[in-house]
Formats: sequence, C-alpha cells, structure tokens
Amino acid sequence: SATVEASYCSNEGVQTVRNISELHQDNFGRPGLSHITIAGSLLHGFKEVEVWLQTFAPGAHTPIHRHSCEEVFVVLKGTGTLYLATSSHPKHPGSPQEFPIFSNSTFHIPVNDAHQVWNTNESEDLQVLVIISRPPAKVFTYEDWLMPHTAARLKFPYYWDEKCYQAPPVKDEL
Amino acid sequence: SATVEASYCSNEGVQTVRNISELHQDNFGRPGLSHITIAGSLLHGFKEVEVWLQTFAPGAHTPIHRHSCEEVFVVLKGTGTLYLATSSHPKHPGSPQEFPIFSNSTFHIPVNDAHQVWNTNESEDLQVLVIISRPPAKVFTYEDWLMPHTAARLKFPYYWDEKCYQAPPVKDEL
Ligand SMILES: [Zn+2]
Ligand SMILES: [Zn+2]
Repeated sequence: SATVEASYCSNEGVQTVRNISELHQDNFGRPGLSHITIAGSLLHGFKEVEVWLQTFAPGAHTPIHRHSCEEVFVVLKGTGTLYLATSSHPKHPGSPQEFPIFSNSTFHIPVNDAHQVWNTNESEDLQVLVIISRPPAKVFTYEDWLMPHTAARLKFPYYWDEKCYQAPPVKDEL
Repeated sequence: SATVEASYCSNEGVQTVRNISELHQDNFGRPGLSHITIAGSLLHGFKEVEVWLQTFAPGAHTPIHRHSCEEVFVVLKGTGTLYLATSSHPKHPGSPQEFPIFSNSTFHIPVNDAHQVWNTNESEDLQVLVIISRPPAKVFTYEDWLMPHTAARLKFPYYWDEKCYQAPPVKDEL
C-alpha cells in the first residue's frame, strides 16, 4: 500500500507493534526469495541488531558469502542445507561442509566463515528468521568456493538496503 | 539429558546446527514461563546478539524492567499485552501505554524504556522470539510503575544466565 511504501525507509516514527504480514515484502531481484526486514538499521533506525524473515522457494539460495558480524538463524518451516567453509583454508573458502537444517532448528555462522543457505527440498518452502549484529550488513560475495578471498566482492548496500541507503555526501572541494 | 546438561554452559564446541526442541528449557523460578536460550553469550559464546524462545502461560509475564540494549520481539503464537512507559517521566516509569500483541506481529523496546510483556489471554500460550544486543542482559527491575528509576534493582546475572556466570575473581591483596 501507499502507506507501507511511504514509511519504508523511515527510521523515525516506527510503530511500536507492527503486523509482519503488512510489512514490505520483496524478492529484491533474487528469484525464489521472499525477504522482509522485520527490524532494520537503514529502514527503522536499529543500531545493534537487525532481524529478517526470509522464505526460499525450492532451489532458491543465498550467494556464497561472508561477513564479520554475528549471524543466527532460526528455521521456522521446511528443510534445507547449510554449506559452511570453515576458516581452515587461508586463500579461498574451499570445499564446504554440508549441514542439514530443518524446522525448529537453529544455526549460527562463525564470524567471517564463507557460507550459503540453500533450500534443497524439492517441494517445500524454507522459512528462516535471520538475526545479524552490527547492521547494516557488509557482505562479501563469492562466485564459487574456490574464488580467492581477495577477489570476493563487497556488495554494499546489500539487496534490501539499497533503497534506503544514503551515500555520505561528497564534499565539493572548490 | 546428561549431554545437554554437560554442554549447557559450554561456550566452546557449540554445534553448528542444533535442534531447538533438544535445548535446555526451564522456568528459572518464574511461574508460567518456559525459557530457552537459542543463542547465548554466557552459554554459547556469542558476543553481539542473543536470541531467546519464551513461552508464557496465560497470566504469566515479565517483571517491569528496563535495559540499555536493543530488544526486538517476534510473536510466534498467541496474544498478549505490551506495557510500555515512554521516557517522558524523569523520576519513575509512570503509567504505561498498552499495546495489543498478536501472532505474526513484531515489536521493539526503545532503549531504557521500562516495559512488561504479559500474556493477557486467558486460554492460550504466548510464544515469542526475543533478540537482544550487547549480551549478557543487564536488567533493572521495578516493583511497580511508580517506583523511582533510582530504586530499580539491577538483576545481574539475569535468571537464565546465573548458572553460567563466572564472577570475576576477587584479588587477594595480601
Ligand atoms: Zn550470512
Ligand atoms: Zn526487555
């Protein structure tokens, strides 16, 4: 609705109680994703935590990525696979470990470990709550698990932060 | 189980994926409460965020309290009431505003505002996910809404942190 749109990037006057089903929901250009920022830094003015509700259609997944913030997942529905490359390899992520994830499970990502969450279930959606610290998210993405850490690309602002991100003003030196 | 108990306060070797239904669950001396620390500072070594799953039986509630961390709730089941005293009154919380909370709603607590979450539904449990920043929780509790801020009592470690809290060693000056 127009009201939702108008208040999307407002970090002032955020309502105390909000109906999640009325919050802005989008795929932000990522096929099979539904993302809602429940509590956001750029969107709502939170400074220390950010909370997302994400639904992945069968086959949908995150990029391979890493970040230096803490990240906790709570799986609300469905099953899937967490791919996690521990920091054992100094040059690139390397072959990841696979962890089955499932409804009513929780998992966390060790700081700076490359990872990917994938709905590997062929018929059911995977729904997760995601909690990150130190928002907004500063995410480095990889094309594949053998890409050197030094080649990973900083995607900032991240997909759902683009609309609300205000680049610092460029000073005119004249 | 013995395994769960043995690893309860371990902040090393936390499993990457954990079944929430197998995590330690307790009322920690508070009638009508079921609390699970999904991701904890003292319990699991998180430094920046903490995530709890709490279920309040009909009539169960938190103390009136405040804290300087950020706090976000996601209501998973049931209905209830958030009592929130905005910081308009300098000496004591004063009469709180009442907000209905409901399944699939989210709410947040402005930093340092006194508040209380109450399952005011007579027949249904209220289940919430709670996210706080800067753990472990440093909570000031009030007997009532007219108690002066200066008389609020620091409860540290908080209920579920008591078991895992290691007080700093006292130096022997001799
Ligand atoms: Zn991540
Ligand atoms: Zn609180």
